[in-house]
Amino acid sequence: MRGAVMHAPGDVRTEQRDDPKIIHPTDAVIRLAATCVCGSDLWPYRGIEPVTRPTPMGHEYAGVVEETGSGVTSVKPGDFVIGSFMASDGTCEICQAGYQSRCAHVEPVGPNGAQAEYLRVPLADGTLVATHGQPDPDLIPGLLAASDVLGTGWFGAVAAEVRPGKTVAVVGDGAVGLLAVLAARELGAGRIIAMSRHEPRQKLALEFGATDIVTERGDEGVARIKEMTGGYGAHSVIEAVGTQESMMQAIRSARPGGHVGYVGVAHGVQLPGEELFFAEVHLLGGPAPVRRFLPDLISRIENRSIDPGKVFDLTLPLDQAAEGYRAMDERRAVKALLQP
Amino acid sequence: MRGAVMHAPGDVRTEQRDDPKIIHPTDAVIRLAATCVCGSDLWPYRGIEPVTRPTPMGHEYAGVVEETGSGVTSVKPGDFVIGSFMASDGTCEICQAGYQSRCAHVEPVGPNGAQAEYLRVPLADGTLVATHGQPDPDLIPGLLAASDVLGTGWFGAVAAEVRPGKTVAVVGDGAVGLLAVLAARELGAGRIIAMSRHEPRQKLALEFGATDIVTERGDEGVARIKEMTGGYGAHSVIEAVGTQESMMQAIRSARPGGHVGYVGVAHGVQLPGEELFFAEVHLLGGPAPVRRFLPDLISRIENRSIDPGKVFDLTLPLDQAAEGYRAMDERRAVKALLQP
Repeated sequence: MRGAVMHAPGDVRTEQRDDPKIIHPTDAVIRLAATCVCGSDLWPYRGIEPVTRPTPMGHEYAGVVEETGSGVTSVKPGDFVIGSFMASDGTCEICQAGYQSRCAHVEPVGPNGAQAEYLRVPLADGTLVATHGQPDPDLIPGLLAASDVLGTGWFGAVAAEVRPGKTVAVVGDGAVGLLAVLAARELGAGRIIAMSRHEPRQKLALEFGATDIVTERGDEGVARIKEMTGGYGAHSVIEAVGTQESMMQAIRSARPGGHVGYVGVAHGVQLPGEELFFAEVHLLGGPAPVRRFLPDLISRIENRSIDPGKVFDLTLPLDQAAEGYRAMDERRAVKALLQP
Repeated sequence: MRGAVMHAPGDVRTEQRDDPKIIHPTDAVIRLAATCVCGSDLWPYRGIEPVTRPTPMGHEYAGVVEETGSGVTSVKPGDFVIGSFMASDGTCEICQAGYQSRCAHVEPVGPNGAQAEYLRVPLADGTLVATHGQPDPDLIPGLLAASDVLGTGWFGAVAAEVRPGKTVAVVGDGAVGLLAVLAARELGAGRIIAMSRHEPRQKLALEFGATDIVTERGDEGVARIKEMTGGYGAHSVIEAVGTQESMMQAIRSARPGGHVGYVGVAHGVQLPGEELFFAEVHLLGGPAPVRRFLPDLISRIENRSIDPGKVFDLTLPLDQAAEGYRAMDERRAVKALLQP
């Protein structure tokens, strides 16, 4: 089959890879209907994470089950499925509590390389969720988004305890931040402040439900949020970047007793204990337990009550994966969908 | 009046101070029935926080209202009252949400020096809670404990989302840690693991409701907690020390999706963002909003359903405050009560 492989920072090639096979009885192999490039794929692309050997890329997927291992009972060949970027057994205490991304037997899907024609998904019963019948083709981008970027933004909003009528600030205007805006709207937030200085992203944020745009960053951004919230700060802040600056901006934008949900993968972040202590904000973050939200998200997409597929502003054939990376790296695209 | 003053690290003297007076119409002056030395008073005593000038000490108090400002309506002279170490207006959005220690008009009581015969309490209406009649003398230590050390341990347990039947670990066996054990028991925890290597403190922890004692610290302590919880870690961890080691021990002892409530005042702590991200635990800490819990805590003490006064294992006249500090510094006493 064909699949995208990163050879070095800035060097992604779509090339011939071995077809995936069932290895464990709990595996499924799916034929991808769509896959995409993640903001987190840009960390190695930019050399911020090392690339030590040719690495199959991609961890977001939606497609049709091709084959299942002998132990798989919840999905069958022909089902259209979406799964999380973290495979989970669904049965351990951590999964049962809704933190499937930290399952006792968690297995990241990424190393299997979802930017390809086929993908082996481990722990299929605990990981995959089937749609209600074959989806209309125009729903596929949205369903693909549920696999990570929507599920992650949604977790950010849930972790930030977004509540009806409350004020939410979103730090980061990448696909996750934009979909966190959508999640905040769906969860009933009264005011949603998107922190963005890029006009096309502001537009999408407004379309997804943002009520206000703040272009200032860092201390100025914090001051603006305080000013807009009677001096208190936002009830909920969603952090979707992962840098020191964005984390501190998020923590400082929340009111005492408020909630920060952080879903940007932390890179070189150090949180000062004393400031955090006196900030007195709730913090929860980490790799999103997307599986917890999938049934609900799939229904909302199937009902057409949300259209998260709008974050894909570039669609390319899988063979042009390299251009997808480039466009996202250069911020010419929010998120690139790849068609196998 | 007489009051304790810290002149330098290790140098506390009970000496003549000016009688406090009503300054603002929202003030009350109370005659102290009892006061005490806090673990946090040991930071400057040990030179870890600077002592730049002679400093009146103490922020824990219970006593009888002597005089109120013209604007005070909720307490009157003769009432026996307890208040938090942080004065709060009780009316701002932060207070209304239960985070009175971060009130928009918060005023720390400490600078007024509660280790004394009399104390001016600002924002009396939002800060003080009266008992139901004059308390029996044997209840006074417990009521005094509610002012900070019980309220803080309680907040630790609430912040750690202690729930019926769940497993709770407590890092720190000072008075706050011990009372966090008591709080966890009252909140219905199924298993309470006190991390302590001091025999008299272990004994008190068991008396307060601990079901297990773990003497190991750091990585070994974490391994022990994991071993006792099916490899998962505790559902809730209460941190009551404030050092880098204790914070990391707390975070690592919690299961993914679990909760860490931290109430030890952070000193020189830096939380590594990446580890925190992948730990995926809820974090909440800070100066305890004691005022939120006071009505409930006072009732429990008056009903004699809890006896937090047991943390005072040394009672001295106010004139011997210096010995109270010494005994706590040398860990000969858990907590010293001072009688004015």
